[in-house]
Amino acid sequence: MPTRINFNVETLGKCKYDSPVKKGDFTGDSDRILYEISLESFQRAKTRKSDPLTMEVAGPRREIFFDPNKTRAGFVTCGGLCPGINDVIRGAVMTLWYVYGVREIYGFRYGYQGLVPCYFHDPLRLTPQMVEDIHKEGGSVLSSSRGPQDPKVMVNTLERMGINILFTIGGDGTQRGSLALHEEAKRRGLKIAMVGVPKTIDNDLCFIEKSFGFETAFSAGADALKGAHEEAVGAPNGIVIVKLMGRQSGFIAANAAIALNDVNIVLVPEVPFKLEGEKGLLAHIEKRLRTRRHALLLVAEGAGQELMESEAKKAGKDASGNVKLIDIGRFLVDSFDTHFKKIGLEANIKYIDPSYIIRSVPANPTDSVYCLQLAQNAVHAAMAGRTGMVVGQWNNTFVNIPIAMATMKRNTIDPDGQLWRNVLESTGQPANWE
Amino acid sequence: MPTRINFNVETLGKCKYDSPVKKGDFTGDSDRILYEISLESFQRAKTRKSDPLTMEVAGPRREIFFDPNKTRAGFVTCGGLCPGINDVIRGAVMTLWYVYGVREIYGFRYGYQGLVPCYFHDPLRLTPQMVEDIHKEGGSVLSSSRGPQDPKVMVNTLERMGINILFTIGGDGTQRGSLALHEEAKRRGLKIAMVGVPKTIDNDLCFIEKSFGFETAFSAGADALKGAHEEAVGAPNGIVIVKLMGRQSGFIAANAAIALNDVNIVLVPEVPFKLEGEKGLLAHIEKRLRTRRHALLLVAEGAGQELMESEAKKAGKDASGNVKLIDIGRFLVDSFDTHFKKIGLEANIKYIDPSYIIRSVPANPTDSVYCLQLAQNAVHAAMAGRTGMVVGQWNNTFVNIPIAMATMKRNTIDPDGQLWRNVLESTGQPANWE
Amino acid sequence: MPTRINFNVETLGKCKYDSPVKKGDFTGDSDRILYEISLESFQRAKTRKSDPLTMEVAGPRREIFFDPNKTRAGFVTCGGLCPGINDVIRGAVMTLWYVYGVREIYGFRYGYQGLVPCYFHDPLRLTPQMVEDIHKEGGSVLSSSRGPQDPKVMVNTLERMGINILFTIGGDGTQRGSLALHEEAKRRGLKIAMVGVPKTIDNDLCFIEKSFGFETAFSAGADALKGAHEEAVGAPNGIVIVKLMGRQSGFIAANAAIALNDVNIVLVPEVPFKLEGEKGLLAHIEKRLRTRRHALLLVAEGAGQELMESEAKKAGKDASGNVKLIDIGRFLVDSFDTHFKKIGLEANIKYIDPSYIIRSVPANPTDSVYCLQLAQNAVHAAMAGRTGMVVGQWNNTFVNIPIAMATMKRNTIDPDGQLWRNVLESTGQPANWE
Amino acid sequence: MPTRINFNVETLGKCKYDSPVKKGDFTGDSDRILYEISLESFQRAKTRKSDPLTMEVAGPRREIFFDPNKTRAGFVTCGGLCPGINDVIRGAVMTLWYVYGVREIYGFRYGYQGLVPCYFHDPLRLTPQMVEDIHKEGGSVLSSSRGPQDPKVMVNTLERMGINILFTIGGDGTQRGSLALHEEAKRRGLKIAMVGVPKTIDNDLCFIEKSFGFETAFSAGADALKGAHEEAVGAPNGIVIVKLMGRQSGFIAANAAIALNDVNIVLVPEVPFKLEGEKGLLAHIEKRLRTRRHALLLVAEGAGQELMESEAKKAGKDASGNVKLIDIGRFLVDSFDTHFKKIGLEANIKYIDPSYIIRSVPANPTDSVYCLQLAQNAVHAAMAGRTGMVVGQWNNTFVNIPIAMATMKRNTIDPDGQLWRNVLESTGQPANWE
Repeated sequence: MPTRINFNVETLGKCKYDSPVKKGDFTGDSDRILYEISLESFQRAKTRKSDPLTMEVAGPRREIFFDPNKTRAGFVTCGGLCPGINDVIRGAVMTLWYVYGVREIYGFRYGYQGLVPCYFHDPLRLTPQMVEDIHKEGGSVLSSSRGPQDPKVMVNTLERMGINILFTIGGDGTQRGSLALHEEAKRRGLKIAMVGVPKTIDNDLCFIEKSFGFETAFSAGADALKGAHEEAVGAPNGIVIVKLMGRQSGFIAANAAIALNDVNIVLVPEVPFKLEGEKGLLAHIEKRLRTRRHALLLVAEGAGQELMESEAKKAGKDASGNVKLIDIGRFLVDSFDTHFKKIGLEANIKYIDPSYIIRSVPANPTDSVYCLQLAQNAVHAAMAGRTGMVVGQWNNTFVNIPIAMATMKRNTIDPDGQLWRNVLESTGQPANWE
Repeated sequence: MPTRINFNVETLGKCKYDSPVKKGDFTGDSDRILYEISLESFQRAKTRKSDPLTMEVAGPRREIFFDPNKTRAGFVTCGGLCPGINDVIRGAVMTLWYVYGVREIYGFRYGYQGLVPCYFHDPLRLTPQMVEDIHKEGGSVLSSSRGPQDPKVMVNTLERMGINILFTIGGDGTQRGSLALHEEAKRRGLKIAMVGVPKTIDNDLCFIEKSFGFETAFSAGADALKGAHEEAVGAPNGIVIVKLMGRQSGFIAANAAIALNDVNIVLVPEVPFKLEGEKGLLAHIEKRLRTRRHALLLVAEGAGQELMESEAKKAGKDASGNVKLIDIGRFLVDSFDTHFKKIGLEANIKYIDPSYIIRSVPANPTDSVYCLQLAQNAVHAAMAGRTGMVVGQWNNTFVNIPIAMATMKRNTIDPDGQLWRNVLESTGQPANWE
Repeated sequence: MPTRINFNVETLGKCKYDSPVKKGDFTGDSDRILYEISLESFQRAKTRKSDPLTMEVAGPRREIFFDPNKTRAGFVTCGGLCPGINDVIRGAVMTLWYVYGVREIYGFRYGYQGLVPCYFHDPLRLTPQMVEDIHKEGGSVLSSSRGPQDPKVMVNTLERMGINILFTIGGDGTQRGSLALHEEAKRRGLKIAMVGVPKTIDNDLCFIEKSFGFETAFSAGADALKGAHEEAVGAPNGIVIVKLMGRQSGFIAANAAIALNDVNIVLVPEVPFKLEGEKGLLAHIEKRLRTRRHALLLVAEGAGQELMESEAKKAGKDASGNVKLIDIGRFLVDSFDTHFKKIGLEANIKYIDPSYIIRSVPANPTDSVYCLQLAQNAVHAAMAGRTGMVVGQWNNTFVNIPIAMATMKRNTIDPDGQLWRNVLESTGQPANWE
Repeated sequence: MPTRINFNVETLGKCKYDSPVKKGDFTGDSDRILYEISLESFQRAKTRKSDPLTMEVAGPRREIFFDPNKTRAGFVTCGGLCPGINDVIRGAVMTLWYVYGVREIYGFRYGYQGLVPCYFHDPLRLTPQMVEDIHKEGGSVLSSSRGPQDPKVMVNTLERMGINILFTIGGDGTQRGSLALHEEAKRRGLKIAMVGVPKTIDNDLCFIEKSFGFETAFSAGADALKGAHEEAVGAPNGIVIVKLMGRQSGFIAANAAIALNDVNIVLVPEVPFKLEGEKGLLAHIEKRLRTRRHALLLVAEGAGQELMESEAKKAGKDASGNVKLIDIGRFLVDSFDTHFKKIGLEANIKYIDPSYIIRSVPANPTDSVYCLQLAQNAVHAAMAGRTGMVVGQWNNTFVNIPIAMATMKRNTIDPDGQLWRNVLESTGQPANWE
């Protein structure tokens, strides 16, 4: 791991108010956990006599930076839907209101657009009564949008409204936007805490063990697909292709496949495959049809993009700045159709894309609890004057992480690790396609 | 109603064996129910002094046609998947085995292909142990296929195997195939009972109040779409288009919309619409976006086919002989995209097609019970020598209906009836689009 | 059927206002359906030259009794919870508001207590916005209570508030209370329409094919009990006793058992059983344990009350006037425990009572649609000046039924009919216990 | 933490066979993780110059102890049902068979009884085909029983059958039984690997972050209770008491309460309460009824046992050796009934005990994946000759833990930690009852 790793979270200044948190253990100012926990890394650090890499433990502090009576907090939710957004909003509003006594809480609507006056999205006033039941529905009560907005204009809005804390619920782009806001505010000498709750349904954050909504998402994926196997066996030479979320990592597809146990092939961005050749996908499926008469494929949306280069070049980027993916599911349908027509084998090909159904379900109970805890720790961090950071979980402990670290790179499936081994054993598919 | 209506079910001959059914009331040989039940129709019939139209009541008969010890029964499942197929198979096998003592039961695989030797689909031997838990999974344990096969070849198979009863689980085409088998068998003087359990997930059978699997299907549709509203409101000017099953009738879309209560527009084959014009769909949605900022549309797959005539001509028919439908969902996505780009209104359009998820779920408890009862009545009818018929429900009573009647025409939503009125009130959409 | 049957619904007077219902077919003033639909009953009626028994068809009338601008409607929900109550309230409020233009709608809280000033339950003002999402939760937004209140006091309240229509959602007792209100109002010359939506989770109404919430209830029962079989087989000689609702009829237990297909014994009030003796329950279970090592029993709460007479005498009645049932589940646990200890067979007995979990779930999609239709027809009836009646369904048609008829007796399972035959075949239990 | 902590796992001897595991990274023989991960503990350890406490990392080893061709593995499942047991069996059988090539796999039935000949429970032969779909059902395909059996007799069976590896799936008592087997085998010089997969639905294992089935259990609890709030508000002064699992720790109740967000009071064994007095439970509920008119209590089964001492003394122990708990739910019902009758406040008290429904559901997808991974690591450990151990998870890493450690004490909720703080904030209940 390169030395540029820096897990030190920025603060707005000295904490001078007594925390109104009444119950429980406070997190000490120097409470940190080790980033690496192997015995080997311990011995290395001991030998080096240098300090090991550590992360700041999240939680309530005995002293806080903001006077709750004068604090104004704002929320913004950006990017695609993900189970648990409303749980995070609800949990943070409840903690601000009941634990800290903050009474001025605003929800900016439609992502960063809500901070830009010309869009005319009036902010909502958030109260406990208003957020009480929002976790029972999926989506975001604040709605969302994609793409950045001008930091200067947005900080103008924050300044005009007297916002001290801005909670950003969103992915990489959103958190980079939050960093830009943080820098703009700092330039102006404004003491605004920018605290993020990182959202990525793909679970691809590199210093965060589990992103909220991920478990709900892959579980909903597994549930929605219980019948896919039946569709595959229901017709002669039935092939069912299911596309699930996963732009750069296949965690949802891999976990859903393991949980389902009916999937025959999983394709993810981390493990390239090819169509043609003796060990290619087409030959593999043909063999399956001739022996087992059906095949069920689970495909992460980012898989196989390299096979569609000519189209990919034309596709460009979406409003969030993500490369537009070519529809790998459609591509496979066409490839299979051509192939099996050519060799004269009647195949019944079906394509299922349940992504929009999955990402808009309410959080399951596990994620509900997790979202609440992330939200509380985000509030604790913000009230203690932490800024330019996101809350996360590492080594089973809630931690505060600088945005710069959290957005440094993406987490992906290790093709040599336990998860992918599980997929290979569960599907019986070849370890590689060359 | 024209006089050509004839609800008389054909029989193979005189019943000469005592029924082994021990428990309960037998259905009398002349037990029939009135087809029309209004007081007015009663008075008309009374005045006319002619007999009113009646249907044969289903159920066990005191005397049966087949000797259970010598009976060989077969099953075949055709067409698309539908919740409850396995419940029907299970219920009929259990009834044959435990109630009548029939021990030779076969399942032909992959639809009518299973009756044609050159496909090499060996029939399965069905026993109670084998079917015990099959209702817990969706799909069909016998698999299915589309399209007809040569009746002569199939009757050869039935004759060679000594099958006395063939249960056909399938839609219109399947039942017409069953009628062809019945006629071919009759021509050869074979006493084979052909009894159908009509399957149509669209609920579009004209003399049958409710087709099995329909409730499960629209409920699964409603469940799967709970998040569609969240997707619509989740983005600025969010438009979500959901396509549900319904080739010639919109019962699934209509019922799901009423149950969901979040849908803004329902489009069905029975109520034509147009895109352009002051009262057209585009103008209506544009108005919604400007005032409400989102729109959720539920579209039956057969809706708006007349708008895509040029493509429709090219499409041809599928293996079942159905006209291939043009994808109305995709057509709407493109139309909306073009329109809102033209007028410079940024719209976020999403398209969800959950059909394959819905049709492969297991039957819900209501349908489980209903499937069992249909299956039992199919067995009772077959054992009593009824043939060329399907079982159904009319005026809340199980009845035997000649295949010719059941396939005469399709049931559709009455645009002036209660169901469509419910849709209009639930969505607030215009009653017509001209 | 005795001649005292009278399906004529009372009206408040001549309809003089044009209905604002715009869309669809009106129900004619003389539209009625036959009560009996068998060919035999037709011939009997024809011969007798008397009129056959008929029921009034429900639905919107071309002319209505109340001026919508001056109409004040009230709602009251009584008795135990049942899935769909909120759907009925929601549907009726929406129909009153949007279809008829009624703007003064009140919800009385905590059942008939809400009509009695000394309880200090202020009525709620109901609007579309308020009821929009209430169908997503179980229970009743108006809360409920058991037992009657003084009709005079309640009519005082109605008179004081100027209520023209009172919708009562509740069971037998509630509808009898509604009849008392109707008679008291009539005595005072008040034109108040009393229209009930009969609620009985047990499905035991005699002239109504299906009570709302019943399908949800038995489905929730079946779902909740998917693991009961696993509990039974999970321990040596495991006996699991599950108690479901069903005071005088076992419809929920019977349907859940058929849908589940894992149940070994169903006990209902309609089929008496005894514990002792060669063919008694204890001997039957003992035999099962020795051969199959487990037993799963489903027991309707009203079953076997005659076995516990001495306790029953002491129990008295509850606030609704129902005889307090002795806990048959607990009685069986104790009886089995004693028996198997006596004979030295170690049995692992477990008792599950999921009733409160089942009755408070939201209506499933099928019931949601059904509740809406009942609610609309209740509103149509009330606006047309019908009173002293409940809405129901008969021969698959919505009908208006006088309260006196609907509360005349209870519907029970016919031990010789198809449903119980299904139970016997599904469980393999003896047809009788003597 | 006392110095008697010893995380060193015993081994049967030197690994001498090449592992057939083909894919992925092997765990090194000295791979260990730190038990404590705080910076402070690091600095302490560094200063002390002693080795820090570490745990052995689980996973496949390059060399293994057993020759797969000659290995015979056995499984036994003991104690109460818990979601995921079948997933563990399935995952371990699949790994033994497909990854290691072990072909002789046996399932002992009804817990330790299955190892004792006089019970006549023949072991099942387990194959991939047999376990393929067992994860779709709850419970245990091997059935279970409570209580210990004579280790000598059981080792006789293992020896006679030539079992080399015994997997024990069960709680504390089961693992202590496994240790006794281990010691007996060692005494005889038998090389049998005893590897446990610790099962405790209560999540109360002290060196294991999360026990399998726990997430499914509290999620099922939360789901089953969605209507409990409706029951509470559905009647005047409605009190609903729900009892959930949790003998010595309230994790299920706490997590379900947080996820549900409708619960007003949570009672757990870790936080004593009293009934009487100004700050007692009765006074608290009375206040709630007078202001909010309803109360929903969630009670862990082990809560408040100290209040029922006289009864507790009489209760004794169950077959597993656990102290028999007095029914706290029933006790609260009676206490409330007495209290509110005494003060003349009509309260409608309902009691729900869904425990048997919850523990028999199938594992949810999250637990399915987790169970598979536990199972695989159990197999890896056994094949590498580890014994007298259980697999667990610590600091988000799979580890091997000596049984002696895992059964040393129980994990409980920290009344000063985040989880209980969440409960207090979510319910608004007092932090203490004195």
